[in-house]
Amino acid sequence: MNEWKNNLRKIKPYVPGEQSKEKNIVKLNANENPYPPSPKAIEALKAFNAESLRLYPHADATPLKAAIAEYYGVEIENVFLGNGSDDVIALAFQAFFNSEKPILFPDITYSFYPVWCELFKIPFKTPALNKDFRINIDDYSGENGGIVFPNPNAPTSICEGEEFIRKMLDNNTDSVVIVDEAYVDFGGYSSVKLTKEYENLLVTGTFSKSRSLAGLRIGFAIGSRALVSVLEAVKNSYNSYTVDALSIAMGIESVNDDEYFKATTAKIINTRERLKTELEALGFEVLNSSTNFIFATHKKYNMKEMFEFLKARKVFIRYFNLPRIDNYVRITIGTDIETDILISEINNFLNKGE
Amino acid sequence: MNEWKNNLRKIKPYVPGEQSKEKNIVKLNANENPYPPSPKAIEALKAFNAESLRLYPHADATPLKAAIAEYYGVEIENVFLGNGSDDVIALAFQAFFNSEKPILFPDITYSFYPVWCELFKIPFKTPALNKDFRINIDDYSGENGGIVFPNPNAPTSICEGEEFIRKMLDNNTDSVVIVDEAYVDFGGYSSVKLTKEYENLLVTGTFSKSRSLAGLRIGFAIGSRALVSVLEAVKNSYNSYTVDALSIAMGIESVNDDEYFKATTAKIINTRERLKTELEALGFEVLNSSTNFIFATHKKYNMKEMFEFLKARKVFIRYFNLPRIDNYVRITIGTDIETDILISEINNFLNKGE
Repeated sequence: MNEWKNNLRKIKPYVPGEQSKEKNIVKLNANENPYPPSPKAIEALKAFNAESLRLYPHADATPLKAAIAEYYGVEIENVFLGNGSDDVIALAFQAFFNSEKPILFPDITYSFYPVWCELFKIPFKTPALNKDFRINIDDYSGENGGIVFPNPNAPTSICEGEEFIRKMLDNNTDSVVIVDEAYVDFGGYSSVKLTKEYENLLVTGTFSKSRSLAGLRIGFAIGSRALVSVLEAVKNSYNSYTVDALSIAMGIESVNDDEYFKATTAKIINTRERLKTELEALGFEVLNSSTNFIFATHKKYNMKEMFEFLKARKVFIRYFNLPRIDNYVRITIGTDIETDILISEINNFLNKGE
Repeated sequence: MNEWKNNLRKIKPYVPGEQSKEKNIVKLNANENPYPPSPKAIEALKAFNAESLRLYPHADATPLKAAIAEYYGVEIENVFLGNGSDDVIALAFQAFFNSEKPILFPDITYSFYPVWCELFKIPFKTPALNKDFRINIDDYSGENGGIVFPNPNAPTSICEGEEFIRKMLDNNTDSVVIVDEAYVDFGGYSSVKLTKEYENLLVTGTFSKSRSLAGLRIGFAIGSRALVSVLEAVKNSYNSYTVDALSIAMGIESVNDDEYFKATTAKIINTRERLKTELEALGFEVLNSSTNFIFATHKKYNMKEMFEFLKARKVFIRYFNLPRIDNYVRITIGTDIETDILISEINNFLNKGE
């Protein structure tokens, strides 16, 4: 009686980052884009024939794959699509990380990697970032079951360049290497081109940040046919239809509207550099960011207190109570007006003891 | 060199049912609804603030859960949501089927069950349906790692009632029992109410059939808090945001528009009974259906040939080249006009030799 309870999966519930739905907040805690999606994508939504939703979407979402393939100069067979890049990376873990050797990723990185390892029972090791929060490439040259890291890394915001990625790949010809480029469109180096040279390289991306479509759930991967065909087989053994018809329709127009994409990512980069300069003037250390957020600390102030102070003032940023980064905050780049409010409230915090 | 290829997941690619995008076909092969989604759901799409797509959706899709909970008379904590019911069932397999004993499902049933077992390495046994294509309940009373079956079953279209489900549950107090009710809204018996009595019962459903929203991908499950909390933990270890913002908005209006739902499901049931009567008059045997499709055979004709004949005439139905059912066809219920064309072409097939 009730023996079924013994066979329930034992797993620590993963707690997603706080997503307050409170109104009138300055929401700089989830790396969302402050600008709306492309007007052409919005037009595609308004023009969508809603009656057609009675039909299943394309099982392989080919029209959106074609748009992405053209954008990146690869073939349709090199493109994989999923329900957000978390879905894509989770499927890639299952598709590629089947060795008994541990996979490798940095100690400070995207918090979902160890969660997937636990879910799929994949052994892992987490070499420490060096004291500048950079990946030490020598930690990634031994035998391993695979490698995954975000580039730019999160929450550090630091991006490595082509030389680093090539060295990583040259040192690891026996493992699949996943480069998670969720944040690459804000001035980072993209290794998509290297997928033509390195058959064991998978690059993942998302429409949630630079394309302002977090609400829609579109993730993708680009890699060799050898990798993408296995990803497709695993996906088709899990869920045939992961990308819905509206995501396909809006995604295509987003990819095709490069002018809007370039304009909004440039605005975010400008605001980021302005914020960095202003925070440095207030005594903060701000890491060089290639993302839509900054990672910052202050030698004289407690960042957890600042996080809570700002929250009480309805300015939401992100604080991680984790070793090595427990006096840092991650701040998403908002509009210029949001940035004005942020800086003003940070000034209030710095001056509150005086 | 290239040792990474050894660690790729070896898996037979699952081939989804044919989804021709040809125009001007009578498409009766994917169990799609011939009627559009609720006008209120379409209105919700048109009224949707597309700019808000820059933000992540509710991580737990609470507003849609609330609508479903109210509809079924359960609490929000008893409702689970996913990216189509395939996503829901795949997560449930991972959450509940962790015994070393085999899980049980019928030999003739939804073709994804053995695929998930292979993907998640779950042992399974498939007791044969009896000669009337009914589940023999005595096959499900020994030790097992869990039970899953569709009710109504697919592709047989047959639904079992409350007595059968209670017996199944009373015989299996040590396993989780998943009843997959994808097709229940077309006159079947729903065991949702039994989830209040049986803590080990999970009932799954979908918006793809009776709610005409296959293009959107909304699946759900209803069960005890004990089951739903583990499902949530597994889901949150896989992908935080599986249900997008547009699905939440349209799904709510669909659930709330019960008048339209009742009217369209009643129309489909009427057309189904008419089709059954007309096919029987032509000498077909048609199983009693509680779904939006029928499962039929003819003693004097080859059903594979009929399937191919109809396909050449642009009427798409479904044929399964599988043991025991290789002289049956599955025909989705379309509009009355589509049914006229179907019957006319079936007449052409039956008379072609004369």
